[in-house]
Amino acid sequence: MNDQKITTSVLPGFMELLPADQIRFDRMKAVIEETYRSFGFLPLDTPAIERSEVLLSKAGGETEKQIYRFTKGDNDLSLRFDLTVPLARYVSEHANDLNFPFRRYHIAKVYRGEKPQKGRFREFYQCDIDVVGRERLGLAYDAELLAVIYRTFSALQLPKFVIRISNRKLLVGLLESIGLSDKAEEAMRIIDKMDKVSLVETKESLKDIGLKDDKIKLLLDFVGIKGEPKTVLDSLAGLKIENRLFTEGLAELSEVILQVAAFDLPVSCYGIDLAIARGLDYYTGTVYETILLDYPKLGSICSGGRYDSLASNYGGQALPGVGISIGLSRLFYQLRELGLLTLAETVYAKALVIPFDMAAMPAALAISMRLREAGIAVETYLEEAKFKNKLSYANKSGVKYAVIIGEDEVKGNFFTVKDMESGEQEKLNAEDLVGKLGE
Amino acid sequence: MNDQKITTSVLPGFMELLPADQIRFDRMKAVIEETYRSFGFLPLDTPAIERSEVLLSKAGGETEKQIYRFTKGDNDLSLRFDLTVPLARYVSEHANDLNFPFRRYHIAKVYRGEKPQKGRFREFYQCDIDVVGRERLGLAYDAELLAVIYRTFSALQLPKFVIRISNRKLLVGLLESIGLSDKAEEAMRIIDKMDKVSLVETKESLKDIGLKDDKIKLLLDFVGIKGEPKTVLDSLAGLKIENRLFTEGLAELSEVILQVAAFDLPVSCYGIDLAIARGLDYYTGTVYETILLDYPKLGSICSGGRYDSLASNYGGQALPGVGISIGLSRLFYQLRELGLLTLAETVYAKALVIPFDMAAMPAALAISMRLREAGIAVETYLEEAKFKNKLSYANKSGVKYAVIIGEDEVKGNFFTVKDMESGEQEKLNAEDLVGKLGE
Repeated sequence: MNDQKITTSVLPGFMELLPADQIRFDRMKAVIEETYRSFGFLPLDTPAIERSEVLLSKAGGETEKQIYRFTKGDNDLSLRFDLTVPLARYVSEHANDLNFPFRRYHIAKVYRGEKPQKGRFREFYQCDIDVVGRERLGLAYDAELLAVIYRTFSALQLPKFVIRISNRKLLVGLLESIGLSDKAEEAMRIIDKMDKVSLVETKESLKDIGLKDDKIKLLLDFVGIKGEPKTVLDSLAGLKIENRLFTEGLAELSEVILQVAAFDLPVSCYGIDLAIARGLDYYTGTVYETILLDYPKLGSICSGGRYDSLASNYGGQALPGVGISIGLSRLFYQLRELGLLTLAETVYAKALVIPFDMAAMPAALAISMRLREAGIAVETYLEEAKFKNKLSYANKSGVKYAVIIGEDEVKGNFFTVKDMESGEQEKLNAEDLVGKLGE
Repeated sequence: MNDQKITTSVLPGFMELLPADQIRFDRMKAVIEETYRSFGFLPLDTPAIERSEVLLSKAGGETEKQIYRFTKGDNDLSLRFDLTVPLARYVSEHANDLNFPFRRYHIAKVYRGEKPQKGRFREFYQCDIDVVGRERLGLAYDAELLAVIYRTFSALQLPKFVIRISNRKLLVGLLESIGLSDKAEEAMRIIDKMDKVSLVETKESLKDIGLKDDKIKLLLDFVGIKGEPKTVLDSLAGLKIENRLFTEGLAELSEVILQVAAFDLPVSCYGIDLAIARGLDYYTGTVYETILLDYPKLGSICSGGRYDSLASNYGGQALPGVGISIGLSRLFYQLRELGLLTLAETVYAKALVIPFDMAAMPAALAISMRLREAGIAVETYLEEAKFKNKLSYANKSGVKYAVIIGEDEVKGNFFTVKDMESGEQEKLNAEDLVGKLGE
C-alpha cells in the first residue's frame, strides 16, 4: 500500500448505481429471470473470459475492434462481447450431456470497448434465451419466444409495447427475385434504419447504392405492407413472387403466426413488420424486434431471431436455434431517463429496528431476529448515536417503518412502530408486529 | 467467420457447470443473497474492470502477479481480484450519497490467474458483506456478522459448522509484550497454518524464525487457550499482559461476545479461537473463520474481520469497517466433491407439458400459459417427435411430472399427469392440475 491519491471515479462508459437504483435494477433482472424460468429455460453461467480465437471466429470488424483482449501466460484471451458465442462453445463442448432441444437462459455481463456515449455502456447486462436443436428445430419454438417476450415485458410493467416479427427470407428472397442479391446486405442495412430517418432519405440511400426507381418502389411497397398478421400474409401471397427463399419465408412466418395463436396473447402486442431486417446479425429466418409504442426513439428493446446453425465452425452437426436478447443496462438507463421505472422498491428491509439507547439493544436484536425468522427482512441500527441521527438514518434509507425500542417498550414488552411517510405511530406487541410487517 | 476447427473446451482453471449443477449453484447463491438482504444489506454491482492503479495500490506481491491486466486505448486496466478494493473506490466516490454506517453486500465474480489446481478457480464468486462507518463503527456490527454467518450457513443447510472468532490485537499485543514485534508477521503466518500441520512442525517453524523455546511455549500456551467464550476471556485476563494492544483486543473481544448473546445463536455455533491470525489480510481487530466441524481440511469457508480504514489511500476521513466473505465457487466445488450439496433442486420447471401430437399442441400451449399465470413454471415440449422420445426428454430433464395431452384429453377436456419417478398416472381437469402442481 502507498499513500498517493488515486482517481476514484468509475471508468468512463461503465455503469455504476447507487443502492436504491441498484435494487430497482436487480428487481428488473429478477423479473426477467423468473419469467425465463417460468418457461422451463435452464441457467448457464460461462466464464467472462474466453480464448480469443473462440470469440474472434464469430466477431465482425467493429466487434473485433471493441474487444478487450489480453494475454496471460501463453494464453491469448478476451472478454466476451455477447452470450451467443459462449453458448456455441458450451453446446459444442457439452453436447453429449445436454438434453435437446436445449433451452437455456443466460443473464450476465458482456464487454464492448465502444466510444462512450449516452446510454451506451462498455460493460452491460444481456438477458438471453436460446433454444438449440440437434439437426432440426420446429417453428413452434419461434412462436413460443413471442410469448416469452410478451410475458417478460408485461411482468416488467413496461408501457405499451409491440413485438414486431418478420422472416428474413422474405426480404432476401424478394431482393433475389428482382436481381439485387449483390445489394442485399447494403439494402437491408438501409431498411433497418428506415424508422430512424425520413422516407426521402431512405429513397436517397437506396439510390446511392445503385437501385433503380422501379425497384425502390417495389421494395418500399413490400416493407410498407401493414395490417393484421392474416392480412399481411395474404398480401404477401398475393405478390406471387416466384423465389424459393421468399416462398420458404412466407410458409415459415405463416406457421409461426398460426402457432402463436394458441398462446392466447393480446393481438395488440405483436404484429408483422416486414421492415425488420437485422442486417448486421446472423439470423436466417424469423426475426424479432420489440418497440415501446410511445417511445419509438429507444429503438428495439428486445431483438432476436432464428439461425441455421449455432456453431458451424466448431465442426459436428448442424445446431439450428432461435433466441432473443434484452440489453438490460441500456434499457434500465433509458427507462430511468424517461421516468418510466415502474418497479418501485428501493430498499429490501421492511423496517429499521432502532434501540433508543444501548440498554435497549438486546431487545432490538431479539425482535430483529424474530422478524427474520418470520421471513421479514429488517435492519437493526447498531451504532451508538443520538436518537435524532438514528431517525435521520431511517429517513435516508427509505424504509417504510421504524420500530423503536426504548425503556418503556422494554419494560412494557411492546414496540413503537412509526410509519416513516405519514409519521403515524402505534404500539404493538411482538406478535402483532410480525403480523403488520409481514403483510 | 471462417471454418477452421476451434478448441471448444473451457479455459483451464475456470468453472463451468452443466444445467443441473448450475441450478444447485444458483440456489446456494440465492440463499446467501436472501440472507444478506434479510439483515438489510444493500446490493452493489461495480464493474469487473477497474483502473490498474486502483487495484494495484492494495494488491500484495502474489495478488499482483495473478492479476489480469491489459490496456485499452490509453487506459491501464485490470480485472478485480476481490470485492473489497472496488468497495473502497465506490465508497470514496459516492460518500456523499451513501447512508452511513453503509451496509452493502456484493455477490460477483473476481479474477485471479492462479496456477490451476483442484478446487481453485481463476474466476470465482465471492459473496461479501461489509459495514463501513464514518470515523467510527460500534462493535455491535462485529457481533451482528456472527449472526449473519450463522443464518447463512443454517439456511444453506450445511453440516455442523462453527464460527471462530478472535481479535488480532491479542496476538499482536502478546508478541509485542514479549519483544517479538519484528517477528509478528512471520509468527502469525505460522500460527495461521497450525491446524494444517503437526505441533512439532509448528514449533520447528517458530524456531526457524528465531524464537526461543520459552517464547514458543508462551505463544503456544496462548493460542491453546480453549473453552466457552467466558472461560477464554477470563483466562486471557488472567494472563495479566501489560500491553496496550492486548488490553484493547481483550476489551473488544469481550464486548463482541457480550453483544452476540442478544442474537440468541446456539452456543455451539461459535467460539473463540486465538489461533486465528489471518496473517495475510489487512484486518486490525476482530477476525472470523468458519469451519465445517466434520471436514476441517476444507479450511475456512467464510472469513473476515475488522479493518481500521477501508480507503486510507484515497484520502479523506477514516472509514472503519467490518466484513466477511464466502468463496462460493470453491465452497460449491468442495461440497459437491463430498456429496454434501443439500439444496437438491435441479430443474425449475415443475412439469413438462407434452402434446401427444401436433393436433394437441394448442391445448398444450393453453394449459402451459394458464399454469404460468398461476405462478407455476412449466416447459412445453414443442418439437415434432415420437412420443417415446418426448418422454425420454422428460426423464432426462429431471422434471417431477409430465402433463400429457392427446386426442382423448383434448376431447374430454382433462390432462393425464404422470409422476416421472413412480410412473403413476392420474387424470385431472385444469383446475385440479393447477392445484396439484402449485402444491
